[in-house]
Amino acid sequence: MTARVVTKIERADAAIIAGLAHAGVATVHEAQGRTGLLASRLRPIFPGARVAGSAVTISAPPGDNWMIHVAIEQLREGDILVLAPTSPCEDGYFGDLLATSAQARGCRGLVIDAGVRDVRDLTEMGFPVWSKAIFAQGTIKATPGSVNVPIVCAGAAIAAGDVIVADDDGVCAVPRGTAAAVLEAAQAREARETDKRARLAGGELGLDIYDMRGTLEQLGLRYE
Amino acid sequence: MTARVVTKIERADAAIIAGLAHAGVATVHEAQGRTGLLASRLRPIFPGARVAGSAVTISAPPGDNWMIHVAIEQLREGDILVLAPTSPCEDGYFGDLLATSAQARGCRGLVIDAGVRDVRDLTEMGFPVWSKAIFAQGTIKATPGSVNVPIVCAGAAIAAGDVIVADDDGVCAVPRGTAAAVLEAAQAREARETDKRARLAGGELGLDIYDMRGTLEQLGLRYE
Amino acid sequence: MTARVVTKIERADAAIIAGLAHAGVATVHEAQGRTGLLASRLRPIFPGARVAGSAVTISAPPGDNWMIHVAIEQLREGDILVLAPTSPCEDGYFGDLLATSAQARGCRGLVIDAGVRDVRDLTEMGFPVWSKAIFAQGTIKATPGSVNVPIVCAGAAIAAGDVIVADDDGVCAVPRGTAAAVLEAAQAREARETDKRARLAGGELGLDIYDMRGTLEQLGLRYE
Amino acid sequence: MTARVVTKIERADAAIIAGLAHAGVATVHEAQGRTGLLASRLRPIFPGARVAGSAVTISAPPGDNWMIHVAIEQLREGDILVLAPTSPCEDGYFGDLLATSAQARGCRGLVIDAGVRDVRDLTEMGFPVWSKAIFAQGTIKATPGSVNVPIVCAGAAIAAGDVIVADDDGVCAVPRGTAAAVLEAAQAREARETDKRARLAGGELGLDIYDMRGTLEQLGLRYE
Amino acid sequence: MTARVVTKIERADAAIIAGLAHAGVATVHEAQGRTGLLASRLRPIFPGARVAGSAVTISAPPGDNWMIHVAIEQLREGDILVLAPTSPCEDGYFGDLLATSAQARGCRGLVIDAGVRDVRDLTEMGFPVWSKAIFAQGTIKATPGSVNVPIVCAGAAIAAGDVIVADDDGVCAVPRGTAAAVLEAAQAREARETDKRARLAGGELGLDIYDMRGTLEQLGLRYE
Amino acid sequence: MTARVVTKIERADAAIIAGLAHAGVATVHEAQGRTGLLASRLRPIFPGARVAGSAVTISAPPGDNWMIHVAIEQLREGDILVLAPTSPCEDGYFGDLLATSAQARGCRGLVIDAGVRDVRDLTEMGFPVWSKAIFAQGTIKATPGSVNVPIVCAGAAIAAGDVIVADDDGVCAVPRGTAAAVLEAAQAREARETDKRARLAGGELGLDIYDMRGTLEQLGLRYE
Repeated sequence: MTARVVTKIERADAAIIAGLAHAGVATVHEAQGRTGLLASRLRPIFPGARVAGSAVTISAPPGDNWMIHVAIEQLREGDILVLAPTSPCEDGYFGDLLATSAQARGCRGLVIDAGVRDVRDLTEMGFPVWSKAIFAQGTIKATPGSVNVPIVCAGAAIAAGDVIVADDDGVCAVPRGTAAAVLEAAQAREARETDKRARLAGGELGLDIYDMRGTLEQLGLRYE
Repeated sequence: MTARVVTKIERADAAIIAGLAHAGVATVHEAQGRTGLLASRLRPIFPGARVAGSAVTISAPPGDNWMIHVAIEQLREGDILVLAPTSPCEDGYFGDLLATSAQARGCRGLVIDAGVRDVRDLTEMGFPVWSKAIFAQGTIKATPGSVNVPIVCAGAAIAAGDVIVADDDGVCAVPRGTAAAVLEAAQAREARETDKRARLAGGELGLDIYDMRGTLEQLGLRYE
Repeated sequence: MTARVVTKIERADAAIIAGLAHAGVATVHEAQGRTGLLASRLRPIFPGARVAGSAVTISAPPGDNWMIHVAIEQLREGDILVLAPTSPCEDGYFGDLLATSAQARGCRGLVIDAGVRDVRDLTEMGFPVWSKAIFAQGTIKATPGSVNVPIVCAGAAIAAGDVIVADDDGVCAVPRGTAAAVLEAAQAREARETDKRARLAGGELGLDIYDMRGTLEQLGLRYE
Repeated sequence: MTARVVTKIERADAAIIAGLAHAGVATVHEAQGRTGLLASRLRPIFPGARVAGSAVTISAPPGDNWMIHVAIEQLREGDILVLAPTSPCEDGYFGDLLATSAQARGCRGLVIDAGVRDVRDLTEMGFPVWSKAIFAQGTIKATPGSVNVPIVCAGAAIAAGDVIVADDDGVCAVPRGTAAAVLEAAQAREARETDKRARLAGGELGLDIYDMRGTLEQLGLRYE
Repeated sequence: MTARVVTKIERADAAIIAGLAHAGVATVHEAQGRTGLLASRLRPIFPGARVAGSAVTISAPPGDNWMIHVAIEQLREGDILVLAPTSPCEDGYFGDLLATSAQARGCRGLVIDAGVRDVRDLTEMGFPVWSKAIFAQGTIKATPGSVNVPIVCAGAAIAAGDVIVADDDGVCAVPRGTAAAVLEAAQAREARETDKRARLAGGELGLDIYDMRGTLEQLGLRYE
Repeated sequence: MTARVVTKIERADAAIIAGLAHAGVATVHEAQGRTGLLASRLRPIFPGARVAGSAVTISAPPGDNWMIHVAIEQLREGDILVLAPTSPCEDGYFGDLLATSAQARGCRGLVIDAGVRDVRDLTEMGFPVWSKAIFAQGTIKATPGSVNVPIVCAGAAIAAGDVIVADDDGVCAVPRGTAAAVLEAAQAREARETDKRARLAGGELGLDIYDMRGTLEQLGLRYE
């Protein structure tokens, strides 16, 4: 596997990214046809964070965090680091020093299908991480990997510059090319939901709002 | 499998339910002879909730949340929705719209051996959920299931109207017919524990309070 | 397996223990050559605790918490209980009564490769626990085990009197005999990191601070 | 929890049981409306076994196999032992001595949501077991459980006398009362499948045999 | 998500595919720079199969096997079906009827990140499957998915027409465009290994053959 | 962590090792007081192997198999390689080339809490392996580890020269110093079991052979 760093990547428009962050993971996932979701094993290290940013991708060997240093140089304001190990690993690739460095370069967070450590410091710094594990196990710097190449992270195919949306529900990746359309669909969805929410809060039933009774009866649902 | 909704279910007395909520999961589980506990994979989406209510049960296909709409119509003030998928699934069956609807009908929470999403909204609403996963993955509405039929949820057999007790320790089901007796046993247990707690806090040893030294010696425990 | 209690154990110096607590799990783990870490399945029941203490070890049968009572008598101010079941188990060995008793004897926390319950009470008491599960399942008192014998807990070999360091990153065991040297190494590491942190916060890159560019190029890393 | 042994249980007709064994797990599961399947974590210790029999159920404490001795006395020719621990456990409850005893009483196999050992001997004896684990860990005989009470085993509710069907696909439970009807449905299903199999083997497509093309087009499937 | 079927896909040359099958998964994985491996949770349903073929990919909803019928029409002699569910699922998507149909169309096997059933029949038919689970749980036909679109299966990105290599070690995907080069590298690797194997069988040490002693000493390895 | 190789280790007597192999894992585990068992996640790559040998231990970094080459030089006729990675890993550390080399040095098998590959070749060679995973993922040779130091492998503490017993039930470690006594206890146990097996085969009940009825009644077991 060639070790390489792609230094020029395209990013989505900042306003679109901000809009997707506001919409949140569940809405964005729906708005793009229920695609792009990373596996549920990725969980936030503290609750309440809600971010979106452009993916700077990292393909790294198991237990080797060297490429995070390389990736940090490629960061631009508003980016999110996304790391996939080349085989399953839960070592702690990332801690407070790397977070300090990444934050200094404008990084909004880390998505990693592996482990992270120094979570108390990261929490105090307000640097959000979505990870598979919290584990203090140290890593080495022996084998180069790649930065800004296409990766599969927690089951989702991600290209550098794709928009990463992450909150308490998990992480969703939006291809850069469709980000504007997905945002539009997400906002339309949100608008529709506002009305529904009000009616449901008033005690109306989804069975009636969505007119489900007939279909259910046809399909054989029986009340006793 | 016939799809059916049982519309008339018996519920336990509100005072008994309130008493069981106060006693909490660990005490209730002990008081009914260490039965009724749901598997530990069910965890609360936020800490601190402590509820009890009557089970409105849902048997739903994997990845299909249609029957939650049907179940919400069957809710009465103080009920708890309990959903078991018919095969293992971690999709996000439930989010803020359904929670709004359920809450409007008096529902006290959701217990689900699958996934849930919009957890930030649910947390802000104070709507407690005990789930196997937090996952934004959407579900469909294609196949009817059943409501208020006997189910097995996270390893526990539950009938509609059973009392569900849930807190930070997990979830326990109490058969409706024995709920009064279980509450009595729980309260007796709590009374006994108050005295024990005081003595232990004062530095007395369980070895002495429970008179264990002799038995341990007989069983061969050796001090070196 | 003989059931036995070793009543005289050596402990590390209180100042060393305090120093290790301050350094934290990740630093201590690095300082002792990346050894001693317990598996990542052990998680704190509430965030923010950061403790160190001398291990009072417990080898207990699955689902039998009798030896915790025996172990509590062996506690001295500043100790930490460390329990390994003799086969995998997630039952709730420990709750608020045992915590009350342990706390009255000066115990600083519990590390257990099994389950714990009454976590709301334990949180209110400020009694920290690192466990594999939160599970209300009750245990019995039928079979003696051993106290203060060498154990393997969550994959780490631990002797009575070893220093246990635990925080949000997990749990690390430091052999008593090398605790002083490990502390020294940890403090040296912390000193070095302070300078690094400042430079990274200022925007310098790890690539430059650690002088990595040449080696990466030699190893074939290619910028595109 | 009262420890009790129900000594009189009803069993299904031998011919029905034999018919269900012949149909196999997948067909039986379909024939009874996709219910009754035990979790996929139960796997056969050797391939090729295909049995059905009447359930003699066992509810046993974790790591305590005493009730298997009690259950063996209740066995009749053609029965299958079904054991559910009261909390998750993978200890080796059962080995060649118990298999010898069970086999001498006419037992056709064991289904256990825990561990088993001596699997080489069991294989040589031709005594089939479906278990969650193969693990030599020994168990104790300290706490009574119950025999022939309703249990939940690997997620399925099972009553004594229910028909257990097990083969390389796993395990399915058929309520005694509906066993005849399920057999009839299974045989009808098999008959239908014979014809389908021949047509498919001849190269006809399921798309045509089941006339799916129109519906798929209506649902928006697009060929490119 | 649009449901679509790509009917024209490119395939690698049959001789290259045959060569890759002969080389086997471990060698092919090494030969293409340690990429393309599917997660180890995919295991063969019977030992000894060793196949390669062109991927006909299927993206299917959880618990819905409709698209397998659609995919079978797209099969050509020598293809392998590769199915990824859109969310985690272990239902039994595939059994003997579908295998009969697929085999009649020249299909060499199935790779599925979900469940399979009728494994005894599939074994007798010699139809190999690599799956995440063996589970009799039935599926529905309600929602279209896609065929021959790019998928992520068990962590690997796979395009229609990529070469799938599968044996007792698992499954590896080789991009169609590089298949010839990978085969060449694999054969070169095999040639080198033949010589090494003979020397190792004769008792020579890898330490000497690969001349490792000096480097190990430099890196601080100490013999005691 | 210092990287070191202990070149002189003590081994148990060959006759004792042979005796333990004959007794098998379950009996040996019982005979030494139910200690020494490795976790059930270690499974044989093919059924039927039953070996014992002296442990040559390996502590290796995750994904780095360099120390296996170093360890092979330390092998003597009748040894078994036992590898524990320093953090969880399922990469394929070992394949047919290393097996050829180890076998040439008299090695009887490998126990590894990680992955292995080339399992078809290993099976044909009759080289048994007990591993956590079968996974073709390649490893590197970058960081030295240690050989013949004390390790924790799959939850069991193992010293170089301890006797490893492995069969279809899993793996058990017997400390060298007590191997003779354990063998004696194992043989005594086997002798006792022969008589029991005959009586159980004849239809006598364990309830009577072990005289359990009285105790069960005292403990409250009730027949209905």
